[in-house]
Amino acid sequence: MTGSNKPDRHIAEMGIQFRRVVIIGVGLIGGSLGLLLKRKALAQSVVGVGRRFDNLELAVKMGAIDSYELVPQQAVTQADLVILATPVETYAAHLQAWGQSLPARSIVSDVGSVKGALVEQAEALLPDEVYFVGAHPIAGREKSGVAYASSDLFHGARCIITPTSKTNPHALMRVRQLWEAAGSVVTMMDPFDHDWILGAVSHLPHLAAFALMSTLQDLQESMPPRALNLFEYSGGGLRDTTRIAASSPEMWRDICLANRERLVPMIDAYVHRLEQLKECLQHVDGDTLHDLIHRAKVLREQLP
Amino acid sequence: MTGSNKPDRHIAEMGIQFRRVVIIGVGLIGGSLGLLLKRKALAQSVVGVGRRFDNLELAVKMGAIDSYELVPQQAVTQADLVILATPVETYAAHLQAWGQSLPARSIVSDVGSVKGALVEQAEALLPDEVYFVGAHPIAGREKSGVAYASSDLFHGARCIITPTSKTNPHALMRVRQLWEAAGSVVTMMDPFDHDWILGAVSHLPHLAAFALMSTLQDLQESMPPRALNLFEYSGGGLRDTTRIAASSPEMWRDICLANRERLVPMIDAYVHRLEQLKECLQHVDGDTLHDLIHRAKVLREQLP
Repeated sequence: MTGSNKPDRHIAEMGIQFRRVVIIGVGLIGGSLGLLLKRKALAQSVVGVGRRFDNLELAVKMGAIDSYELVPQQAVTQADLVILATPVETYAAHLQAWGQSLPARSIVSDVGSVKGALVEQAEALLPDEVYFVGAHPIAGREKSGVAYASSDLFHGARCIITPTSKTNPHALMRVRQLWEAAGSVVTMMDPFDHDWILGAVSHLPHLAAFALMSTLQDLQESMPPRALNLFEYSGGGLRDTTRIAASSPEMWRDICLANRERLVPMIDAYVHRLEQLKECLQHVDGDTLHDLIHRAKVLREQLP
Repeated sequence: MTGSNKPDRHIAEMGIQFRRVVIIGVGLIGGSLGLLLKRKALAQSVVGVGRRFDNLELAVKMGAIDSYELVPQQAVTQADLVILATPVETYAAHLQAWGQSLPARSIVSDVGSVKGALVEQAEALLPDEVYFVGAHPIAGREKSGVAYASSDLFHGARCIITPTSKTNPHALMRVRQLWEAAGSVVTMMDPFDHDWILGAVSHLPHLAAFALMSTLQDLQESMPPRALNLFEYSGGGLRDTTRIAASSPEMWRDICLANRERLVPMIDAYVHRLEQLKECLQHVDGDTLHDLIHRAKVLREQLP
C-alpha cells in the first residue's frame, strides 16, 4: 500500500498490458505463457498458431489460448505482441513469412534457448518499425507438449532477456514486465554472452548426457558377459546424470546446431579433462586424481 | 504362517545368525550395517574398528556398534564375521595385518564398489580355513560418515555378491541371508563381470560428472565476459547431471584406480561418442545429430 514494487501490484497499476498476443507454437512453453497471460489478465485476447489441430483444440480447452489460426500471416496482422515459441531453426522462415504483416510498433519476442546470431537475424528480417526483444525463460523441459503446460512454470525460474544496441527501450520494458509478472527472476545480458553461458551450463551437460547414454549402449553391445543387461544394475547416480538425455531430440538438435560455434570448443575442453582423468588412471596417479575429484566436489557444492 | 518365504520370517526361524561381527571402518555403510545387525538381532555383539575415537564413540551412541577397538588384530580373534568397510585400497594392508589372527571357519566379507582383482587378492591373502565372500551393496553415497547411517539404507537396494570357484557355499549362503535380511535385492555375479557392469553404470558416470565440473571451471576462467559467473545461471539440469560429482574424493579415487583397467577403454568409448557429436556440429549434420539424441532418449526412458 505504500509504494510496493512487487510485480503483481505493478501490473495491476498498469492495467491490461497487451490487446492481442499471438503465440506461435503452443507447446509446453508457449502454452504455459498463454495460461499465464489469461490467468493474470495480461492480454485481452491470446491467439495460438500451430500446425496440429488437435493440439490447438486442447490448448483452447485448457484455457491457454482464446482461439487459434493455422496461418500465421492472418493471425499477426492485429497483434501488439507476437511470441515465437517454435524451435529456433524455424525462426528465419517464420519471420520471412509474416514479418512484413505486423503492425507498426508491435513487439516480437521469443522463448528460445539460443540467442546470439538468432537475435541479429530477427533484427535484420523484421521491418524497422517492429521491435524485437529476445528472451529465454529457463524452465524445465524434459516433458514437451501443451498437456504439461502450467501458468506456474516460470515462477521463481530465471528469464534472460538479451537486448542489443538496436532494442527499443519501451518494448524491452514491456517484455521485462511480462516476465516479472510471470514470477521469473529477470536478468539482462548480451545475446552472445547468453549463448556462451548457456552453452556451458546447459547445452554441454546435455551433450555429455546424450554421449553417456550412447556409450552405455556401445558397452552393452561389446561387453564380455553378453547375457547380462547392464541397465538393470543402474542406480540413482546414472538416473540423475542422464535425466536430461530424455529431452526432445528435435529441440536439442536445433539448440546444439544453433550454438555450435560455442559448443565445439566446449566439447574439446570436456574431452581434454576426460583425457586427463584417463591419464591419472593409466599412470596410477592417485594424488592428481584425488585433487581433480576434490576440486569437482568443491565446485559442485557451490552450485546454487 | 503357511511357509512364507519372506526374509524376516526366514531370519526369525534361524535365530541369531552371528555371534561376534567385527566391522572394519564404521562410516555410512559400515555404520548402517551395524544398525541393521543390532535392530534385527542378527548378531550377539557388533564390534567396530576404526582410527577416529570420536567417530567410534558416536557409532556406539547411535547403537551401530556395541563396542570398539582401535587395533583390528585384537578385535578379530573371536569373530565369526568380519566386514571390511574401508576404502578398497586398504584391503591388502588390512588382510595382511590381521588375516592370520582370524579363527578357523570365520567369514570375511566386504562392501566395496570394486571386486575383480580385489576378491582374488583377498582369497590369496587369507588362510585356507577362513572364507571370503565379496559383496557390494549399491546404496547412495554422496554423504559419508556414520552420522548419516541408517538401518534402512539397504532396503530395496541391489546387493551384488561375487562368489568364485573358491567360495565356501555355506559362507556364501550366510552372507546372502544377511543382505536379504537387510531388505536388499541380492544378485550373484562373477567379480570381473561386476567390475565391468559397475564401471559402465556407476564409475564412468562419476568420471563424466567430475570432468564436467572441471570443464565448467575452465570455461569460467577462459570466458570472455569474465564479470559473469556462469554458475549463477545453472538450472536443475546441471544440478542433477553433476550431483554425483559431490561424492567422496578418497573413495572415488580408490574405486577408479582399482577398476582402471576397465575404465580406461570406457573413457575412450565415451570420448569417441563426444567426438561424434562434435563432428555433427562441425558438419551441421542435423540428421545424424537427431538420430544420436533420439537413441539416447529412448535408452534413457528404458532405465529402471
